[in-house]
Amino acid sequence: MTTSAIVGLGMTEMGKVFGRSATRLAATAVRDAVADAGLSLSEVDGLLVSSGVRSDLSPLLAGVLGLHELSLLAQMNSYGATAGAMVASAAHAIAEGTATTVVCVFADTPLSESSAGPAWGAGGTALAGYRGWQAATGAATPNVLYALAARRHMKEFGTTSEQLGAVAVAQRAWAVHNPHAQMRAPITLEDHQASPWIAEPLHRLDCCLVSNGAVAVVVTSADRAADLAQPPVHLWGHGQAHEPRRLARGSHWGLRTPAARSGPQAMARAGVRREDIDLLELYDCYTYTVVVTLEDYGFCSKGEGGSFVADGRLGPGGELPCNTGGGQLSAFYMWGFTPLSEAIVQLRGQAGERQVPKHGTALVSGNGGILEYHSTLVLGAEARRQ
Amino acid sequence: MTTSAIVGLGMTEMGKVFGRSATRLAATAVRDAVADAGLSLSEVDGLLVSSGVRSDLSPLLAGVLGLHELSLLAQMNSYGATAGAMVASAAHAIAEGTATTVVCVFADTPLSESSAGPAWGAGGTALAGYRGWQAATGAATPNVLYALAARRHMKEFGTTSEQLGAVAVAQRAWAVHNPHAQMRAPITLEDHQASPWIAEPLHRLDCCLVSNGAVAVVVTSADRAADLAQPPVHLWGHGQAHEPRRLARGSHWGLRTPAARSGPQAMARAGVRREDIDLLELYDCYTYTVVVTLEDYGFCSKGEGGSFVADGRLGPGGELPCNTGGGQLSAFYMWGFTPLSEAIVQLRGQAGERQVPKHGTALVSGNGGILEYHSTLVLGAEARRQ
Repeated sequence: MTTSAIVGLGMTEMGKVFGRSATRLAATAVRDAVADAGLSLSEVDGLLVSSGVRSDLSPLLAGVLGLHELSLLAQMNSYGATAGAMVASAAHAIAEGTATTVVCVFADTPLSESSAGPAWGAGGTALAGYRGWQAATGAATPNVLYALAARRHMKEFGTTSEQLGAVAVAQRAWAVHNPHAQMRAPITLEDHQASPWIAEPLHRLDCCLVSNGAVAVVVTSADRAADLAQPPVHLWGHGQAHEPRRLARGSHWGLRTPAARSGPQAMARAGVRREDIDLLELYDCYTYTVVVTLEDYGFCSKGEGGSFVADGRLGPGGELPCNTGGGQLSAFYMWGFTPLSEAIVQLRGQAGERQVPKHGTALVSGNGGILEYHSTLVLGAEARRQ
Repeated sequence: MTTSAIVGLGMTEMGKVFGRSATRLAATAVRDAVADAGLSLSEVDGLLVSSGVRSDLSPLLAGVLGLHELSLLAQMNSYGATAGAMVASAAHAIAEGTATTVVCVFADTPLSESSAGPAWGAGGTALAGYRGWQAATGAATPNVLYALAARRHMKEFGTTSEQLGAVAVAQRAWAVHNPHAQMRAPITLEDHQASPWIAEPLHRLDCCLVSNGAVAVVVTSADRAADLAQPPVHLWGHGQAHEPRRLARGSHWGLRTPAARSGPQAMARAGVRREDIDLLELYDCYTYTVVVTLEDYGFCSKGEGGSFVADGRLGPGGELPCNTGGGQLSAFYMWGFTPLSEAIVQLRGQAGERQVPKHGTALVSGNGGILEYHSTLVLGAEARRQ
């Protein structure tokens, strides 16, 4: 069976990058990723594109790049689970012989010089049902909905704001050593506590950044990967799970997420156990999602995520290195391509001052749709049957 | 190697179907497709969604349907090549063990009670480059760009408006027998010639319909298909190709399309030759695309498509049954799901009065992005190694 590897990585500047469309940023990232792999654009025969909240990115990117021998081309969206879904989809197409060299790219331009952030809206004026409840309560944005989820975790399990703050502090300690990070000044727990409420119980430092930028990765067969420019990052396993949001009595929404299914699925496919994982790159749109994902993956018991993260074990020198580039909280917010890109850098051993000494295996998560969608990738520095 | 089959088909009413969102139409089509297969929604573990020009459809459809054990979920878009790309992607995921039962659904609601058609725009006010050329010339809509392509084919190869009209007449003759078709009154070549110009040389009867509606298909393994409710429609092969649009001297745009690559690719994978194909379901956003696709697939020589279609061979009783439900010109416009759905009905032998007697193999095409994207599927009534 053909297995796949990630052989190229391209990343633009991140954050307040103005004057370039998402398509243009994506084109730069694709060119860089292909060059990074030691390939030329003419060797690319697959292109999967995705984008975030405000973007002109489409399959037309193929034309912009002058690609003309594609046998796989699609725009894909699974919200925060997109990166994992795209890499898995690329690997499927390679295994089935549809394509040999697939670039997966994400780009977004939520920031503009004239506005502070993305325009999330209630998406309608309906006054009935869930939309009506949103309109009536204002609970229409990710900030508010994740605040509800975090609040429920706190109420049920005793998780505290200081415990969430420990995630922010640990990740900032990583970001200090990441030249690509938007936020590199160290922070303390006091800084976290003093940062303003965005939506109680979420402080500003519990929330991800907003970034313009693009990330691209190149996927090819493991056999071919061996001959290319970079140390290959092998796809050992993947999983995807989904669960509709139910804000209703009896629902476990906010307490348990589909990571509880996608994680075990990916690890089973990879033939690894949690003990085999050297580093974690977890989707961290909020500090809370790191806590709940650690529980759902089984790194601690359900409900104990708060105390599990409070002792600094996720930060530099800790026993479970997590979001080692600073993550979406401190580095940049490229949806699932934030954790994916950092895993690649670490598994290659190219993370410089923030390099994790033991970096043979990484677990990469993606969640989206307010805890409805989840993807997990298990990546390894060595070739291994998927 | 695991091969796949299409085992369920769901279609809503088509055309002026008002008061239902694309998501609601899609939900109906998915439920119908799953029931058609003799399956229940709880057996679905993959969902790929796509949509057209004006649609609220998203991966959130999974929640609307109450699906909660999905291991594959994404929105996909490859323009008019989407249907083929989605079915291939579903087959890949099934072959690789990611999912067992994948629903692919398309929905669109371009029509509203208060407007006549979809709102195509120049997409910007730039006055430089290609966008500027579009703004200056008005060549910003598919009608205008396909008119350019058709005009070039006419100029280079002598193709005539009457020859294009023969495609429209043949397809309407099929539509007369299709209860799902929006246009069922027979037409003559005179009607075609007398219909108003939309964009010269394209008459109104050269152009596809505009439809609200949804189509869903269920894909599963060929092994499992054998035990389900409907005669399976097996995926024998697929191909996808892409070519950037170049409206420049020396370009063959308008004369040759990526069908010339995706077609042979799909037939080679399927192990069939053109002579083995019993019926064609070709993406017919305009009569012209049928002509150029027939040439690119090699059913006639390049440049001879006009005379090839003029003798009625594509219509009922003809030697090469094509777009046997009326196609996008006379039945309904659900992008690539129009030809796909009709191929399924024919291969099952369920086409009633329009049933093609010999219906063992079908070639299904999808083109989009003004001749830039192309997909081909080879479908068979019998199981066969893909």
